[in-house]
Amino acid sequence: MKTLIKNGYLITVDASDTCGEGCVLVENDTILYAGPEENAPQEKADRVIDAQGGIIMPGFVNTHTHVPMTMMRGYADDLALMDWLQNHIWPAEAKLTEDAVYWGSMLAMCEFAAAGVTCFSDMYNFNAQIARAARAAGLRAMIAVAVLDIDGGGDARLKNAEEFFDLVKGERRITAAIGPHAEYTVSPEMFGRVRDFAAKHDARIHVHVSETRQEHADCLARHGKTPIGLLECLGVLELPVMAAHCVYVSDDDMDIMAKYGVSVLSCPGSNLKLGSGVPRVAEMIKRGVNVSCATDGAASNNNLSMMEEMTLTALLQKGICQDASLIPAKTAVRIATVNGAAALGMSHLIGSLEAGKQADLIVIRTDGVRWCPRANLLNHLVYSGSDSDVMLTMVGGDIIYQDVRIMFGDVEEIKAKASQYAAKLFA
Amino acid sequence: MKTLIKNGYLITVDASDTCGEGCVLVENDTILYAGPEENAPQEKADRVIDAQGGIIMPGFVNTHTHVPMTMMRGYADDLALMDWLQNHIWPAEAKLTEDAVYWGSMLAMCEFAAAGVTCFSDMYNFNAQIARAARAAGLRAMIAVAVLDIDGGGDARLKNAEEFFDLVKGERRITAAIGPHAEYTVSPEMFGRVRDFAAKHDARIHVHVSETRQEHADCLARHGKTPIGLLECLGVLELPVMAAHCVYVSDDDMDIMAKYGVSVLSCPGSNLKLGSGVPRVAEMIKRGVNVSCATDGAASNNNLSMMEEMTLTALLQKGICQDASLIPAKTAVRIATVNGAAALGMSHLIGSLEAGKQADLIVIRTDGVRWCPRANLLNHLVYSGSDSDVMLTMVGGDIIYQDVRIMFGDVEEIKAKASQYAAKLFA
Repeated sequence: MKTLIKNGYLITVDASDTCGEGCVLVENDTILYAGPEENAPQEKADRVIDAQGGIIMPGFVNTHTHVPMTMMRGYADDLALMDWLQNHIWPAEAKLTEDAVYWGSMLAMCEFAAAGVTCFSDMYNFNAQIARAARAAGLRAMIAVAVLDIDGGGDARLKNAEEFFDLVKGERRITAAIGPHAEYTVSPEMFGRVRDFAAKHDARIHVHVSETRQEHADCLARHGKTPIGLLECLGVLELPVMAAHCVYVSDDDMDIMAKYGVSVLSCPGSNLKLGSGVPRVAEMIKRGVNVSCATDGAASNNNLSMMEEMTLTALLQKGICQDASLIPAKTAVRIATVNGAAALGMSHLIGSLEAGKQADLIVIRTDGVRWCPRANLLNHLVYSGSDSDVMLTMVGGDIIYQDVRIMFGDVEEIKAKASQYAAKLFA
Repeated sequence: MKTLIKNGYLITVDASDTCGEGCVLVENDTILYAGPEENAPQEKADRVIDAQGGIIMPGFVNTHTHVPMTMMRGYADDLALMDWLQNHIWPAEAKLTEDAVYWGSMLAMCEFAAAGVTCFSDMYNFNAQIARAARAAGLRAMIAVAVLDIDGGGDARLKNAEEFFDLVKGERRITAAIGPHAEYTVSPEMFGRVRDFAAKHDARIHVHVSETRQEHADCLARHGKTPIGLLECLGVLELPVMAAHCVYVSDDDMDIMAKYGVSVLSCPGSNLKLGSGVPRVAEMIKRGVNVSCATDGAASNNNLSMMEEMTLTALLQKGICQDASLIPAKTAVRIATVNGAAALGMSHLIGSLEAGKQADLIVIRTDGVRWCPRANLLNHLVYSGSDSDVMLTMVGGDIIYQDVRIMFGDVEEIKAKASQYAAKLFA
């Protein structure tokens, strides 16, 4: 099965950030060619898609999500983090069921597909249901089993993790990870067990780090170390670590992260909305840390748009550091795509348009008034584009969204089911 | 001519922030009724529009724009303010012609209509062409003639202003204002003449204030006063003043602004993108200042989306002040609508859905996945909505945009003409 996407403007996000008119040829799940039309292999395609002059680029990699939280969208806004969490989110989460999680996750899959997200990295419970939704939709996913032992449930959660790793073993698009929640919910002893678990399974560790000023300060008071310092000390950083938020990491923390290859999963929208602050992304990059970006859950965002996070990442660094040259458009695009692939250890597989990589790609219309004049499509993508410009989303060669249509289910049914279960959470 | 918009969810933005299911009845250019369907006057409508459960709300009031700058979108991004202005924007502006301004402005009109902007307040040159575009599109506009005398051209600009005030006298939707550019481009003597001009014409004064740290500090060094302090001293604040940006206004400045009723035209996206900083909007509101929001020109934004500025206003205040309760959703909506009307001295005319006001309103689809579950449509509007959800834009009873269609011209022709003139600016 060969698919040709022609008449496009390629943003390859390869090592040299190649941009220009061109086409992409896909065979089954793999990119055969991405480049100028005149150099394309003259092979007959089974399927031809006209990009109509739109952008063809790698799909967005959303590196920190809690997908079932779409069900909690809009129920508890404008609240401080701890009030939000303890008085609204946790009580709702206590009522979650397998079916609720499945349909909430399916709603997120619809949103991802429509927003050009081809891969997401999640941390939550009920992971089998999240995997089931990702499978149904055809999304690529790394799903971390949340582990915490502050409530004494550490053993049960590690057992869950063993079962989930068994469940998805050998799957092409779904990978398991282990998700020690955060320093304030996971004991040093449990961090050690998580490290051993990750080593045994050759798995990545997905953890919340220094999201709020309070959390960072409490850890310093408790251990005499920052969360990153503590993780280093516990040997956790010797495994591949994905650290969500990192709003309050110190300069020393950044150097440690660079040294061990810890990737940052930055969630600027959620950090603003919950009043947490602004992560120092430009400084992290300067110090050699791999920074990706992410939406966090829809209860604190309140949507799953990677284009908005990409834009916000660029704008915030310029504004807060008072330097308009920080995070130029091409860096913002890398943060939202190839850096995410690297965070997930999938650089060889996804994140750029290059022959041999998986065909995880999107096509973005550029005929809206916000794209006129066609001065610089890369800049327009970052500073003027919007989710509604996504015309096609492809994962591993499969089209999961095209021309405002979800290809993997009845969106009205998904919305109805998710709404029905959401109402029960807040009844 | 009577129009009934039925089956909607009203966000009235009236004094008590009434929200709920309802309809709006419009007669000619005026709202006859806005409220629950069961209480609506039983009058036969000539035209019935089904809002399909979507939001009906006042149109956005974009209080600080430079509409012809759509032509410069994407040509000079990721640059520091002075480099951007002196080496890219000013040389391009020097090549502007009447026709270029008209077509660039028409492109902005398309973007406004599609983004639910029903009224804009501009500051630029070639004002007759901007008025011509607003007239052609049916937008409501307050158009300020830019005045500066740093180049010796003060007299000519005041003469322009006289001519422009004559030109639009008596127009229903277009109002003239006077726009002394900023403290660093307008002499104290010229500010005095502008004040007299505004008093004579009963006009509002539109001025850039404390946009950058440097500008604010330079003014202090030059005059021993902040820009707001200087304007007070020169008697300018005795007239109605609209102050754009105000990123660096002091607490004392805010108190002065509250005392004189100076309105702030806050442009958070542009302030971030140019590396200027973040205006202290929550503090201004606390001190009694009327704060509206705006996009600024498309060369520094890079789009004209008021929904994005509304969202950014709420998110930034929460994140920067580390207080998630600041600028809750309903306040953000007021900033983008009724506060803008107040800034323009049009509170009696627009800014809310109330009987007797002009029918400047928009309908927003709520059937997208980002609006599910339908927990709280006001919150969804601010934290999850997007321009692409706008399904209808009405100004003074006239529909200027409906179902992805611009009603006042051929959008492809407008894009082509604007692009053609834009290319000449950067040739």
